[in-house]
Amino acid sequence: MNFRSDNEADAHPAIIEAVSKAFRAGPVHSYGADPWTQKVEHRLREIFEKPDLCAYPVATGTAANVLAIASCCPAWGAVYCHPASHIAVDEANAPQFFTGGAQLVPIDGPAGKIDRRKLEEALAQPVYGVVHHPQPAVVSVTQASECGAAYAPEEIAAISTAARRHGLKVHVDGARFANALAFVGCSPAELSWKAGVDVLSLGATKNGALGAEIVIFFESAAATEFEFRRKRGGHLFSKMRLLSSQLDAYFSDSLWLDNARHANQMARRLVAGLTPLPGISLLYPVDANEIFVVLPARMHDALQAAGAQYHPWPSDRPGERAFRLVTAFDTQPAEIDRFLAIAKSSV
Amino acid sequence: MNFRSDNEADAHPAIIEAVSKAFRAGPVHSYGADPWTQKVEHRLREIFEKPDLCAYPVATGTAANVLAIASCCPAWGAVYCHPASHIAVDEANAPQFFTGGAQLVPIDGPAGKIDRRKLEEALAQPVYGVVHHPQPAVVSVTQASECGAAYAPEEIAAISTAARRHGLKVHVDGARFANALAFVGCSPAELSWKAGVDVLSLGATKNGALGAEIVIFFESAAATEFEFRRKRGGHLFSKMRLLSSQLDAYFSDSLWLDNARHANQMARRLVAGLTPLPGISLLYPVDANEIFVVLPARMHDALQAAGAQYHPWPSDRPGERAFRLVTAFDTQPAEIDRFLAIAKSSV
Amino acid sequence: MNFRSDNEADAHPAIIEAVSKAFRAGPVHSYGADPWTQKVEHRLREIFEKPDLCAYPVATGTAANVLAIASCCPAWGAVYCHPASHIAVDEANAPQFFTGGAQLVPIDGPAGKIDRRKLEEALAQPVYGVVHHPQPAVVSVTQASECGAAYAPEEIAAISTAARRHGLKVHVDGARFANALAFVGCSPAELSWKAGVDVLSLGATKNGALGAEIVIFFESAAATEFEFRRKRGGHLFSKMRLLSSQLDAYFSDSLWLDNARHANQMARRLVAGLTPLPGISLLYPVDANEIFVVLPARMHDALQAAGAQYHPWPSDRPGERAFRLVTAFDTQPAEIDRFLAIAKSSV
Amino acid sequence: MNFRSDNEADAHPAIIEAVSKAFRAGPVHSYGADPWTQKVEHRLREIFEKPDLCAYPVATGTAANVLAIASCCPAWGAVYCHPASHIAVDEANAPQFFTGGAQLVPIDGPAGKIDRRKLEEALAQPVYGVVHHPQPAVVSVTQASECGAAYAPEEIAAISTAARRHGLKVHVDGARFANALAFVGCSPAELSWKAGVDVLSLGATKNGALGAEIVIFFESAAATEFEFRRKRGGHLFSKMRLLSSQLDAYFSDSLWLDNARHANQMARRLVAGLTPLPGISLLYPVDANEIFVVLPARMHDALQAAGAQYHPWPSDRPGERAFRLVTAFDTQPAEIDRFLAIAKSSV
Repeated sequence: MNFRSDNEADAHPAIIEAVSKAFRAGPVHSYGADPWTQKVEHRLREIFEKPDLCAYPVATGTAANVLAIASCCPAWGAVYCHPASHIAVDEANAPQFFTGGAQLVPIDGPAGKIDRRKLEEALAQPVYGVVHHPQPAVVSVTQASECGAAYAPEEIAAISTAARRHGLKVHVDGARFANALAFVGCSPAELSWKAGVDVLSLGATKNGALGAEIVIFFESAAATEFEFRRKRGGHLFSKMRLLSSQLDAYFSDSLWLDNARHANQMARRLVAGLTPLPGISLLYPVDANEIFVVLPARMHDALQAAGAQYHPWPSDRPGERAFRLVTAFDTQPAEIDRFLAIAKSSV
Repeated sequence: MNFRSDNEADAHPAIIEAVSKAFRAGPVHSYGADPWTQKVEHRLREIFEKPDLCAYPVATGTAANVLAIASCCPAWGAVYCHPASHIAVDEANAPQFFTGGAQLVPIDGPAGKIDRRKLEEALAQPVYGVVHHPQPAVVSVTQASECGAAYAPEEIAAISTAARRHGLKVHVDGARFANALAFVGCSPAELSWKAGVDVLSLGATKNGALGAEIVIFFESAAATEFEFRRKRGGHLFSKMRLLSSQLDAYFSDSLWLDNARHANQMARRLVAGLTPLPGISLLYPVDANEIFVVLPARMHDALQAAGAQYHPWPSDRPGERAFRLVTAFDTQPAEIDRFLAIAKSSV
Repeated sequence: MNFRSDNEADAHPAIIEAVSKAFRAGPVHSYGADPWTQKVEHRLREIFEKPDLCAYPVATGTAANVLAIASCCPAWGAVYCHPASHIAVDEANAPQFFTGGAQLVPIDGPAGKIDRRKLEEALAQPVYGVVHHPQPAVVSVTQASECGAAYAPEEIAAISTAARRHGLKVHVDGARFANALAFVGCSPAELSWKAGVDVLSLGATKNGALGAEIVIFFESAAATEFEFRRKRGGHLFSKMRLLSSQLDAYFSDSLWLDNARHANQMARRLVAGLTPLPGISLLYPVDANEIFVVLPARMHDALQAAGAQYHPWPSDRPGERAFRLVTAFDTQPAEIDRFLAIAKSSV
Repeated sequence: MNFRSDNEADAHPAIIEAVSKAFRAGPVHSYGADPWTQKVEHRLREIFEKPDLCAYPVATGTAANVLAIASCCPAWGAVYCHPASHIAVDEANAPQFFTGGAQLVPIDGPAGKIDRRKLEEALAQPVYGVVHHPQPAVVSVTQASECGAAYAPEEIAAISTAARRHGLKVHVDGARFANALAFVGCSPAELSWKAGVDVLSLGATKNGALGAEIVIFFESAAATEFEFRRKRGGHLFSKMRLLSSQLDAYFSDSLWLDNARHANQMARRLVAGLTPLPGISLLYPVDANEIFVVLPARMHDALQAAGAQYHPWPSDRPGERAFRLVTAFDTQPAEIDRFLAIAKSSV
């Protein structure tokens, strides 16, 4: 009953297998000139219906985010993001480091999602071309958000429209993009470039990989400097097959979506069992694989005693204790059911 | 007959196995709070006979080098290194990026090794505390050097003595430290902290891993900021077991030294077969697993025709063509012998 | 009738005279080893009753702020400041540049002043020592604030107490410190180090100088790296007397306070004349030399027609037009009176 | 008899006068929207016969150099410069700071001047577009060099041709450009853009100003980002007239060239008197206003005893003591003659 984080999970057997095989294949060219890296890019062009996209594997979500953002933001630029976003809260100033000092501007909104109107208001400030002010450059949205909510394609499009009106680029932190996509149910293209996204950090690590993410530029022109940025960030792998063999398996046979769908279903199973119970309330809608929930003290105690693992989460209302529970690609229905049984019996 | 680079090689089966097993072990804490990461640090304390060293896994050699150097160099500092060093030539300004702008000062010497006397001369300049001048902060040596030569413990100690006299720290880029150690034949401690090394980037990727390096601080006090630097560089893995399970296997049962010894032996077997042939000359002594050699045109053509792979290398003498050949942990004696047979038959 | 900004004003004759004289004094040592620079530091030690303070002239307010902040904030640090603060809004990401990427965290409050309770709440987040999160490092307050309000010594002390409880340093952007001091009426020490301020950017440019600011560290230990930071920022003057001769005159014979007092009085004279008029309302208390005021349309038109100059200012209430008027050390009572006469006649 | 440095000299009365007047002119727009700043740019367009050049005042030579270089060098770029150049030796890593980490590559040559053939050799390395290697971006030459030698227009052109062949930009550190120009005797255009220079840091501080330099882009397109870089570096003056009134006087009535010519003549008078004396030898040709000379011990002692001031300079030959003597716009012939009389009498 480990619901601490999807980054504590194992890797999917097919991905482990792919890595094992890749490293027994004999010598291959290094630094990405290997067959897996090429295959991944080609497959992503098909999956996203975008024959000229460029895709670059990196190892961590932070690397993916900050290299992507740095590619479209000058050192005197401003990046608009939710105050709860990973780039603002969980990356130890890596965005500022890689951009050479860009400013993060918090734009609030419910459930970790940027409020389009607040964004428009912020972008309407008369700062453009004025040398004193940080120059609006990028809007970064997290899909699914840090509160487990997914943006619909129309919501992304509305944000993109506001951004583009002022010349900004749109970045998506897609550490859990697969989970959002599985929830929304549209095509990958519809949830990305067709909705105005310029660059996507597409995660695999939290969804069954050992450690791999990929940065996708939907316009290849935007990517010219990326390889230099990746290298000088220390993020270019010599044995690139470590990353690309994972991604090759991940994007084959819909594994990425199957994994995400499973994790989402497990979250819904948990929600379905919990919400009827007294004293339970959800902080945010559960679109993806994260649940933010208020648990009564007795229930929490009973679950802890039984060995259930999950993190506390700040709650606004005094006296109330909230928690985050995360499901993963390999969460077992039986774990959920056992958790629910304990929860019920504590009532 | 692939002698292009040791980073084109497969991974060692024991390391592949360790990774596969680690990712089937069930949920573990993320970001390094897992059993493998702890084990690796403990094992290194034994191997290096230094109970208070601190060790941090990262994924690439560039990351290891620049995070290590940044930990002991202010933005207004100077880093003394060989003009052929990886940090000066092959890291796309990553050292300057991570230090906030340190200057690299080239100190020449034969076979890719810093000439101690030239270093002393450079360090004798009256720049200390003078606000205009970059402040001498770090000497970085590559062990084995980019020309395949190993520093003896006394050579490292002489450099350290010069460095410490002026308050500088000593960093070793040990991408091929195991190969150097296997050649020198002393203890790991004797080739590092006992010779005055402060921080070591210890490589595994080129020596049988899938992609893993580890930064070792021999004085734990020096490491306080390292974890912040690693995180803001995007180099902290959530599923850290990907790195630490590799390193755990690598440092078990002397695998790291066995691999290095084998690669070195294959290099020596190649040298032993080549040097008696007419028209052959070595550019540098072959201490580790890299051979820099002038090949007669007919021999080169014959080898190419037979499918041998290796890189050209700049030669100082006009009309002469030099090449780099690299052996690896999995180079087969039969490959060497076939290579030598072709070489001989071309004479 | 120029009330656009105090940085559009002339310089005070005594300061012009001091510069002229200094540059006819014959050769002096460069880079600050001149008599004026030494004198300024000594005088500040007396003025602030702090014999071990260190003081460094620079040319611009932005340079003073960001060099001061960078001296006490790591690259992974967070700087808490008002969302309207100059460092957040008007320095084109210079704070992030000089710190190597620190994050600015906005803490709101009335009249451009940080709300101590909101600060305490922000500082209570459990982020200390957690490698993912920007590390709280500095609180920066603007004195007088960008809305023309002054912090009382007790207000500064309350902020400092909150900051120090968590190990943060306190920086004051004192571009208009003299105006605040003239308003508050306490001693310079009471409004700075006795209230817990660690480092002060003390302005002269807006208060009668040609272009000079000075960074004051109240604990000399904090200043060790400052000179390197100033030099590598390109902010060390070879002919330092250009800055220090200005500052020498500025801090002599209470000129700095006389200038500030005059500017404040002119602002009060303006306020006293305006507030009785119908349709007038002040956005913020007028403590220093800046007035933020709603003017009726007819009054604004009449003033513009008569050649009065001042900037528009954003107003929250629809239909209302607000403006900023700034007085300076050399604003003439007659200008104020003429302005008021026009205003009155427009009613 | 102060020959320590031209930055220890007074300012020229006409420049002092211009500043004094500018700060009594009444209110003017800040941040460069004042009449002096516009006039300076217009005058430089005439002087350099280039109607579309853009010119930006800054306060220090380091600021001018590093803002100029950063404008044409990516963070992964390489800047080729003489090992004795100010940017390499005397700017505390400011070039690396402002470029985000560019590498300085030393190219040696006699008298502080880059050897064109060595430059060509360095630029011929096959590093272009290869992601591992710092990308050649800028050649920076110092005119006059740090050893007092001037490049002829043909020498600059030869370097520019080599640079442009590989797509690099050419920067001139012209802290003593006026002295070089006075020596060479050609037009400003011939010594700059007609010889292939892209951006020039043109100094005034060492040649009679209080503290002012100006960055000139000969192609306006290159300058688009400059104003953001200047602001975020803290180098935009609110009371810009402090800089531009100096520069206005400096470029009026040939003052800049008159000052330089005088300083050069004083240097030649010194050389003419010294070289016939026994034991005297010059380290470099004396083109501008700096003399590097070996003085016999007795002569040095006699000069010191008489109060002559100048700096020691490293000499290659053991037992020999060399010195640097710098003349300035206000050096008096009588000072030279007194110096020479003492020197002669010591023989």
